[in-house]
Amino acid sequence: MSGSAATTHPAGFEAAGVACGLKSSGAPDLALVVNRGPLQNAAAVFTSNRAQANPVIWSKQVIADGTVAAIVLNSGGANCFTGAEGFQTTHLTAEAVAESLGVSAGDVLVCSTGLIGDQLDREKLLPGVAAAAAALDADGGADAARAIMTTDTVPKTVALDRDGWRIGAMAKGAGMLAPGLATMLVVITTDAVLDAAQLDAALRAATRVSFDRLDSDGCMSTNDQVTLLASGASGIAPDAEVFAAALAEVCVDLAGQLQRDAEGASHDIVIEVAGAATEDDAVEVGRAIARNNLFKAAVFGNDPNWGRVLAAIGTTRAAFDPYDVDVSMNGVRVCAKGAPDRPREEVDLTPRTLLLQLELHAGNASATVWTNDLTHDYVHENSAYSS
Amino acid sequence: MSGSAATTHPAGFEAAGVACGLKSSGAPDLALVVNRGPLQNAAAVFTSNRAQANPVIWSKQVIADGTVAAIVLNSGGANCFTGAEGFQTTHLTAEAVAESLGVSAGDVLVCSTGLIGDQLDREKLLPGVAAAAAALDADGGADAARAIMTTDTVPKTVALDRDGWRIGAMAKGAGMLAPGLATMLVVITTDAVLDAAQLDAALRAATRVSFDRLDSDGCMSTNDQVTLLASGASGIAPDAEVFAAALAEVCVDLAGQLQRDAEGASHDIVIEVAGAATEDDAVEVGRAIARNNLFKAAVFGNDPNWGRVLAAIGTTRAAFDPYDVDVSMNGVRVCAKGAPDRPREEVDLTPRTLLLQLELHAGNASATVWTNDLTHDYVHENSAYSS
Repeated sequence: MSGSAATTHPAGFEAAGVACGLKSSGAPDLALVVNRGPLQNAAAVFTSNRAQANPVIWSKQVIADGTVAAIVLNSGGANCFTGAEGFQTTHLTAEAVAESLGVSAGDVLVCSTGLIGDQLDREKLLPGVAAAAAALDADGGADAARAIMTTDTVPKTVALDRDGWRIGAMAKGAGMLAPGLATMLVVITTDAVLDAAQLDAALRAATRVSFDRLDSDGCMSTNDQVTLLASGASGIAPDAEVFAAALAEVCVDLAGQLQRDAEGASHDIVIEVAGAATEDDAVEVGRAIARNNLFKAAVFGNDPNWGRVLAAIGTTRAAFDPYDVDVSMNGVRVCAKGAPDRPREEVDLTPRTLLLQLELHAGNASATVWTNDLTHDYVHENSAYSS
Repeated sequence: MSGSAATTHPAGFEAAGVACGLKSSGAPDLALVVNRGPLQNAAAVFTSNRAQANPVIWSKQVIADGTVAAIVLNSGGANCFTGAEGFQTTHLTAEAVAESLGVSAGDVLVCSTGLIGDQLDREKLLPGVAAAAAALDADGGADAARAIMTTDTVPKTVALDRDGWRIGAMAKGAGMLAPGLATMLVVITTDAVLDAAQLDAALRAATRVSFDRLDSDGCMSTNDQVTLLASGASGIAPDAEVFAAALAEVCVDLAGQLQRDAEGASHDIVIEVAGAATEDDAVEVGRAIARNNLFKAAVFGNDPNWGRVLAAIGTTRAAFDPYDVDVSMNGVRVCAKGAPDRPREEVDLTPRTLLLQLELHAGNASATVWTNDLTHDYVHENSAYSS
């Protein structure tokens, strides 16, 4: 389903990615995606962190009326905790896009990603906006996807085709990956005919079971934003459920791409929690495991340390009896009813993916949470330089 | 205040530490502390983890009547999630102590520490109890302190003198250090004359501001137990407030020793949160920072990344405005009112201790939380072998 056409895969969109100098490496650092219509309907979800970056504060105002003409995204700086000057930079960025495109600044979303606490250099950013506008192309999706990368090692994109309509997407994210949302910027486009309320409902449903269930390192970002833009250019209005299912498929695919590119990770851990009293309980149990450094370090060492799993979930308020829980790793049930079952030596943790399955014996609800192991490379990437 | 006499520093106590073979290294792994009276009053606090080890389940029953004759502690295995067989092992251990000392098994506390999910070898443990009983000595505190070490690099002890009465203590703990309690076993002795209710009140007050505020790695243990035993052998009944203050001093000292020996740590981080609306808010903010891997990895890299501090506390429900917060590191205010203040380059993070101070401007409450950085050695110690 990956496709480099990304946000320009559906009809009605143009995109660009350019280097404006925010990154000292000279790599592309500014992306622009424009919705040429005929519709300019949109929805977005944002980080639930109370510490919100200036572009998040701005974009929440823009999305309120469900109309978006363009979205501009920079890497090379988060523009968070940068005071009034920082907010003005975001505002000026939207104004620059508006001027270049002949639209209202109130219809321009802004996203930023990078180090918190530093000002963005307007002398580089604002001329960059004009350059990006000049570079807009109906095949520009791949360039845009590269321009939003930070510590990502690969661009993350999706291109999906349905009966006469399409969805395209790009995402960035490798660190600060935790729910509410995982730390990332995502732009999803479609040429289906949908109004803003339909987009909003479908987007919230899709993110709830995808990005919100990815918890790579327990650290919640200040800049998360997932945006869905609809051009209506296909002329086709899909059934709401069909669209919701396709959108969820796109989001789960992107979440998987984020997980596989998580900073320093050597294992992708899929935590399937079954037999929970409620779905919320299943998610809480999964997240407690996803945030347990001792368990994650053990997985890095290929050590099937199920005791650390039970110690982790014992800290939750979910309804279950720790002495009723079964734990399996890659198909080997190492713990039954809270006591040793198969010998841990039977578990092979050398594959990249670890399937960790819990049966709580407390009900019929279930949920899947994705995480990564805790590795030397994670510590290195997050200690050797500021990000 | 450290003193190797430890639990035998006060009058009325005997202790021993022996090697019974639970540790394959042959290092001491079994400690016994006996209260010879005349009083045998006691109090204890336990992990708040719902996943509780067999010795915790046993000891909660023993402590209910406030009378304890002895406490036996083994390293080399946690005896947690080991089923009915494991609980029986704990019971038999208490029985063996009771038989050796001529006391009731119902007055014998049991503690275990080590790998979760493996059975303890009774063929080694039970003869070890007899050997420990035979080795009891009024100067045995140092031996006992060494016998409870796991990944600890040094024994942790305290010996404190007041007007005619004393407190002694030993502690173990290096990983799974997180509130409720920090992961550890602690035995504190006193020859002061105090009843069980007085001991319980003083112990809960002391642990609340010491071990409960230590959060080295966010991982809560299944085996935590802090025990306070009073022999009354001094014949002196101290003022309740004076005793409580001395006990808190002992607990804060031990918590500091645990922090400085935390697995793989290269920095001890003291998080002082001031200007909170409530003390609970201050603690919640401190813990959110203590559990943020990105911030802790930055500290390892000597990077004063205050943006990660604000991103961490934005996830809490504490009452404050993120854009009103001041952050100082080692005396340099790098963030004022949620915006950059002094250049981060002015902060020197090469010393072992980092003093991180937050002013929330939301009230007059404050709290201190202690943590460590996230290092390569932490990952190594927790991935290279099972613990």
